Amino acid sequence: MAVQTVASSTDSTGTASARNVDLGPAAALSCRECGHRVPLGPVFACEECFGPLEVAYDFSSYDTEQLRERIEAGPANIWRYAPLLPVPADVADKPNLNPGWTKLVKADNLAGELGITGGLYVKDDSGNPTHSFKDRVVAQALEAARVFGFTTLSCSSTGNLAGAVGAAAARAGFRSCVFIPHDLEQGKVVMAAVYGGELVGIEGNYDDVNRFCSELIGDPAGEGWGFVNVNLRPYYAEGSKTLAYEICEQLGWQLPDQIVVPIASGSQLTKIDKGLRELIGLGLVEDKPYKIFGAQAEGCSPVSAAFKAGHDVVRPQKPDTIAKSLAIGNPADGPYVLDIARRTGGAVEDVTDEQIVDAIRVLARTEGIFAETAGGVTVGVTRKLVENGVLDPSKTTVVLNTGDGLKTLDAVAGTGLTATIRPSLESFREAGLA
Amino acid sequence: MAVQTVASSTDSTGTASARNVDLGPAAALSCRECGHRVPLGPVFACEECFGPLEVAYDFSSYDTEQLRERIEAGPANIWRYAPLLPVPADVADKPNLNPGWTKLVKADNLAGELGITGGLYVKDDSGNPTHSFKDRVVAQALEAARVFGFTTLSCSSTGNLAGAVGAAAARAGFRSCVFIPHDLEQGKVVMAAVYGGELVGIEGNYDDVNRFCSELIGDPAGEGWGFVNVNLRPYYAEGSKTLAYEICEQLGWQLPDQIVVPIASGSQLTKIDKGLRELIGLGLVEDKPYKIFGAQAEGCSPVSAAFKAGHDVVRPQKPDTIAKSLAIGNPADGPYVLDIARRTGGAVEDVTDEQIVDAIRVLARTEGIFAETAGGVTVGVTRKLVENGVLDPSKTTVVLNTGDGLKTLDAVAGTGLTATIRPSLESFREAGLA
Ligand SMILES: [Zn+2]
Ligand SMILES: [Zn+2]
Repeated sequence: MAVQTVASSTDSTGTASARNVDLGPAAALSCRECGHRVPLGPVFACEECFGPLEVAYDFSSYDTEQLRERIEAGPANIWRYAPLLPVPADVADKPNLNPGWTKLVKADNLAGELGITGGLYVKDDSGNPTHSFKDRVVAQALEAARVFGFTTLSCSSTGNLAGAVGAAAARAGFRSCVFIPHDLEQGKVVMAAVYGGELVGIEGNYDDVNRFCSELIGDPAGEGWGFVNVNLRPYYAEGSKTLAYEICEQLGWQLPDQIVVPIASGSQLTKIDKGLRELIGLGLVEDKPYKIFGAQAEGCSPVSAAFKAGHDVVRPQKPDTIAKSLAIGNPADGPYVLDIARRTGGAVEDVTDEQIVDAIRVLARTEGIFAETAGGVTVGVTRKLVENGVLDPSKTTVVLNTGDGLKTLDAVAGTGLTATIRPSLESFREAGLA
Repeated sequence: MAVQTVASSTDSTGTASARNVDLGPAAALSCRECGHRVPLGPVFACEECFGPLEVAYDFSSYDTEQLRERIEAGPANIWRYAPLLPVPADVADKPNLNPGWTKLVKADNLAGELGITGGLYVKDDSGNPTHSFKDRVVAQALEAARVFGFTTLSCSSTGNLAGAVGAAAARAGFRSCVFIPHDLEQGKVVMAAVYGGELVGIEGNYDDVNRFCSELIGDPAGEGWGFVNVNLRPYYAEGSKTLAYEICEQLGWQLPDQIVVPIASGSQLTKIDKGLRELIGLGLVEDKPYKIFGAQAEGCSPVSAAFKAGHDVVRPQKPDTIAKSLAIGNPADGPYVLDIARRTGGAVEDVTDEQIVDAIRVLARTEGIFAETAGGVTVGVTRKLVENGVLDPSKTTVVLNTGDGLKTLDAVAGTGLTATIRPSLESFREAGLA
């Protein structure tokens, strides 16, 4: 694998100004492991220690009340938080899918079912343009791609990400080329292909697809290509912060007491924590304790297993679960998730495929929200955490639904007709429906 | 068929106050044919002439600027327009799916493709909670059901409506019982059944299902049942007005010059016209001419055929098109659609199934919006109207997309991989992808 470090493409003055890159408040990239700073660029691994790079900001000029007013006067999408994201100030004027500002649903019926009395909310990201939270992260990668002069938007994917990249590229006038395992289900192929970009099947499994993408980035053939979750990953990942911002603003600029987040790579959970801490630091919310809980499927529960065993490292697993969008057996941000769960007093838990399906049904039946399997994981884990006494039912709790049930219909394929009758009142009465 | 008229269930003083019904500004039901007024109630046909009843309002107390401010300060859903809908003033506090305020997408790429220079917008109702405009109308029916004391929400459906009713009832704590043809595709059954209400298959076709529902309404077994599109239809139908309100507000309180609307029963188009005229009457938009265009699939084009033939009546057709959500062969509001298209200087046009699929692809490729077949119909018809010189490309044009492509994946099932390669740069180059 050709790891591209900052040294190969930029100088290392440690500031953005050196390259005249305008990504708003983003000041540099900073290594999560050793703190080494490098200028903003399409790089993702530290040249010193190969640790992951993340965006560092300069928020020093912000006045709390002015910032709050500016956000509240902003558009009903993620760009209301442009002052806190690695994007130019005029981002809202550029063609993109304008994701975010999805509903925070007060879920009283579900709360009753789960025994939560302190207020339960579902952050329903199925309301995004391509119906998953991926629109948030892809939108950040797109702006970085514009700034760095890329013309092709790319990724490896087995599902939601392919559609999010295809749609975003179409709207923004980018070429897109998405790589997927060649034997993906036809329905998922259609959802990704309909946007008209190039969709390339790779003979091999998802690991082979990823390995190939890394090779392409290091090759001249990959010049001008922005891989949203590889060489644009530091920017891409920041998109998940917007979930934290929206939840707090929708709660009336308050931190939730408890928040349940699904774990795939673990990036989303770590960025939600980052977003919450930024809001505290900026004075936009009152500083008080919050707990972050991670949710996995039992069939792919490396972080949950490590949490329960008290380990700091995550032992990779071979995924086998219906929650395909969370099926990452070797989650890159797993150790950070463990840190956050322990630091905040949260936990990491997992549920079986059967519990996932049951939770999808419970959420649909109580709140009219049809969730993807990942939503079944968070709702199922929430129920389990309440039952085990780990989650406090008297506290304000937010559960994430990150995708749409229409994309994982197979999970509830057993759901069917209550009855079949002839078109007559007699048959209706016989069926006991009156 | 047992037609239930107002005489059978209420007095006929012609005012709501007689029954102490609070549906906000709704004052009475009024016959669209003869103007006969009856009190607000769960009735849908005029006792004098069997014409359709619609909601009549009393807006006389509104001050234009106060109303505008009140709307703009309202929630980001249809309830911002509560002062103009048949709902109680506190509607936003009751559990419902809060649909609406969907994106009005400035579609410059699509405009370029279609040759429209005056500004083209897509009103994308796939962003609603169950991903179709049906959430708007069902939400009105739900409030009427609450007021009239119904406890079961019901409908006949072959698709979008079943899910919208199931989800709305689940959230609001109503029982739901939805009737569908027994041989509906499994995917559609799942989408409707997942909300946990009763889903009853009727041995017969959609006409048989409808006939049975009408019988049930006239029978004691149907007591307490609100059929959203039958005995609650006058309220239900008003939900489509919100499309007109949102479009104008999102255009900065301006009427569009031209608007392209799909035709199923024709109700949506007539209510959009009603909504536009209300905004003019209330002074919320400047009074200027607008043209409404109706869009049908060739395989179910009774209104288009009548328009082209210069007829005032619509001759029923047997539907045969992939645009299932528009496949109503005998559209109840067809004559009103003809009136409106002619009065406003619009037109009614139709496109083939092939043109529908092509239009779905064009919209996805240019704007990243994956539309249901009904969206293919409106985009395809817009293209045809421009080509034929009927639609003025120099004027502001709004095209409706009323549903989500994920619900009609079969329509674009032919879409697939651009290429299949081995996981190597050599294979990548051989495929001409570099
Ligand atoms: Zn480092
Ligand atoms: Zn009448």
